[in-house]
Amino acid sequence: MYMDNSATTPVNPEVLKEMEPFYKEEFGNASTLYSLGRESKKALNLARERVANLINAEPEEIKFTSGGTESDNWAIKGIAFQKRNKGKHIITSVIEHPAVKNTCKWLEKLGYEITYLPIQENGIINIEDLKKAIRDDTILISIMHANNEIGTIQPITEIGKIAKENNIIFHVDAVQSVGKIPLDVKKSNIDLLSISSHKIYGPKGIGALYIKKGVRPEVLIHGGGQENNQRSGTENIPGIAGFGKACQIANDNLEENTRKLTKIRNKIIKGVLSQVDEAYLNGDPEKRLPNNVNFRFSAIEGESLVLMLDAKGIEASTGSACSSQSLEPSYVLTSLGLEPVNVHGSLRLSLGVENTLEDADKVINDIINVVNTLRSMSPLWNSKNGKSDLSIAGDEEYGLSK
Amino acid sequence: MYMDNSATTPVNPEVLKEMEPFYKEEFGNASTLYSLGRESKKALNLARERVANLINAEPEEIKFTSGGTESDNWAIKGIAFQKRNKGKHIITSVIEHPAVKNTCKWLEKLGYEITYLPIQENGIINIEDLKKAIRDDTILISIMHANNEIGTIQPITEIGKIAKENNIIFHVDAVQSVGKIPLDVKKSNIDLLSISSHKIYGPKGIGALYIKKGVRPEVLIHGGGQENNQRSGTENIPGIAGFGKACQIANDNLEENTRKLTKIRNKIIKGVLSQVDEAYLNGDPEKRLPNNVNFRFSAIEGESLVLMLDAKGIEASTGSACSSQSLEPSYVLTSLGLEPVNVHGSLRLSLGVENTLEDADKVINDIINVVNTLRSMSPLWNSKNGKSDLSIAGDEEYGLSK
Repeated sequence: MYMDNSATTPVNPEVLKEMEPFYKEEFGNASTLYSLGRESKKALNLARERVANLINAEPEEIKFTSGGTESDNWAIKGIAFQKRNKGKHIITSVIEHPAVKNTCKWLEKLGYEITYLPIQENGIINIEDLKKAIRDDTILISIMHANNEIGTIQPITEIGKIAKENNIIFHVDAVQSVGKIPLDVKKSNIDLLSISSHKIYGPKGIGALYIKKGVRPEVLIHGGGQENNQRSGTENIPGIAGFGKACQIANDNLEENTRKLTKIRNKIIKGVLSQVDEAYLNGDPEKRLPNNVNFRFSAIEGESLVLMLDAKGIEASTGSACSSQSLEPSYVLTSLGLEPVNVHGSLRLSLGVENTLEDADKVINDIINVVNTLRSMSPLWNSKNGKSDLSIAGDEEYGLSK
Repeated sequence: MYMDNSATTPVNPEVLKEMEPFYKEEFGNASTLYSLGRESKKALNLARERVANLINAEPEEIKFTSGGTESDNWAIKGIAFQKRNKGKHIITSVIEHPAVKNTCKWLEKLGYEITYLPIQENGIINIEDLKKAIRDDTILISIMHANNEIGTIQPITEIGKIAKENNIIFHVDAVQSVGKIPLDVKKSNIDLLSISSHKIYGPKGIGALYIKKGVRPEVLIHGGGQENNQRSGTENIPGIAGFGKACQIANDNLEENTRKLTKIRNKIIKGVLSQVDEAYLNGDPEKRLPNNVNFRFSAIEGESLVLMLDAKGIEASTGSACSSQSLEPSYVLTSLGLEPVNVHGSLRLSLGVENTLEDADKVINDIINVVNTLRSMSPLWNSKNGKSDLSIAGDEEYGLSK
């Protein structure tokens, strides 16, 4: 039972079908003159339309990249280089994905100044903090739409309005939200938006950067002039065609999937919080992705939890996949104000379109059993009174609903 | 009959077979803790070994990228940023692929100085020019192994020796040569080497940068820390697995393919030059890729040639695929000393492993017919005496053998 869809998703069979001809008979380079290449060019245009439709952009505003990470790098470095004579100040948040965070850290080495907005205890930035952070030399605001660990949704339309009023470029990392919740780049005044294919049942190795007409970040990958001279490299047509199809499917099923996933999500949250002692929900209970659940349990290790759930046939994660192999506590969770000792017992379940309400029953039961087993072996858990021996932060302290 | 394999190649069915499980049941993220991701990690390691074997590198010296263009950008910008306090001078050549050329042009905007070495009339740089160009502040030499238009092979082992003696980083764009002619990064003292998958019957959207142990270009794509913290982004496992398989197949068949392709190539060259008036071979007749043929014909347009050959079932190109849609004359050909009027009548045939000696017969005949037809309509061709009316450069003038 796969519940790690924020890490990656299986490719939808319809998507794979869309890709296959371009590996075989229609393998032509989209930039050639002869007829073989023309089919590739058609596929490229169709995919561009499909991606654009999902976020209410124009097709020519979609540039294909190798994935969400490249898109984030391009957007941020591209504006940093382009506007370097106007200013060197960038505003972002403390809980951005490493693709944004580490890009900003690198820019600091080159003399840029970055303001990392804190988050509130529900995982959402304070709009007043943003307003105060804006300076004359601020060239970019980069705030994610939904967080990859705790699923919290940021108020991007409010942020877009402020960015526009202050004439600052606004970049949104929408890798986790696109195809899962409604997104309208026009309505939210977004200038640049990063999307990834493999989070929405498309293939890995492909993504896009939406670049609003008139915005012109410096090129990150120079070369033969593909993507209207903005992103070079032979077009990955099978990947692009598959990505386009995945966007179309996500778009067609957005409302239905949201309704269904929200039900499963809420069932799991309620089931676990009501039956496991010292279990807490990380992130906002309402303003969160329909497919995201993130618990913390006192006195146990998330890693052991994940491995024991794997043995029971459930794939889940602790923190994000990207940083799961490091032993550092999640910076997203510590940014919520949690102590490292509390962060370590975290578990993320990210649901997918194939999950059902019956899956919720199984995962609740398995979590209860695994948590009990781990606690029975934990030196931090007092089996006699059914409480942890450490003073572990509870919901009261952090304002998180149980 | 596909003869544009330098633009791209069809995916080998064995390669596709290697990729398929990773789209379906084995879709897991390679960075996860649970067993599903472990298969991805194994595939990643196997592919790294296979790529390394093809160029005599160590597996850990191979970093996967989205393709040859990204690899070129990473190598050059990476060293430019890393060594910016040591110097800002880079040496390259006038016939590099746009991925190298346009990256260098961008660095010029940032204050770097680039020396573009000229080429001799056979398309090869003069080693003496290179030696003279080296300065105290030279941080990088970037010279391609084989040219994408005229197939000319540069003396990379000699260049590597000079780079090493002068303690300068040496980058080689080997996108066109790898898997086609022998390549040994150790023997040639190469520090950085760019490879692409889709030129050797692997999938598009994947490639690698070989980075010699101890060399540490700045990161181009920051994020979650994949590829040993050097190239972030969820690993494109199907692409990587396919690329690895393609490298293994290329390696296993290198000698046999070279022998076979050289025969077909020479047959086409001899057949056309001996039967078509005012037909010339661009590039060196010996020091060239076994699969590259590049002709020029007086008094006709390469574009018309390509389109008429397409109608006869032959896919070929004029210049490279990357720049084929621009009307600019090829800078590679003008660098040979050719006048634009002569460059326009160029035709590139890049052979593939599926071509045969019988294909050579067909393409020779078709070229003869198409050239005759086009010349019969050309205002520049004098049908009465069977010569062009323009004084067009012949072999004598440029030292190119007919």
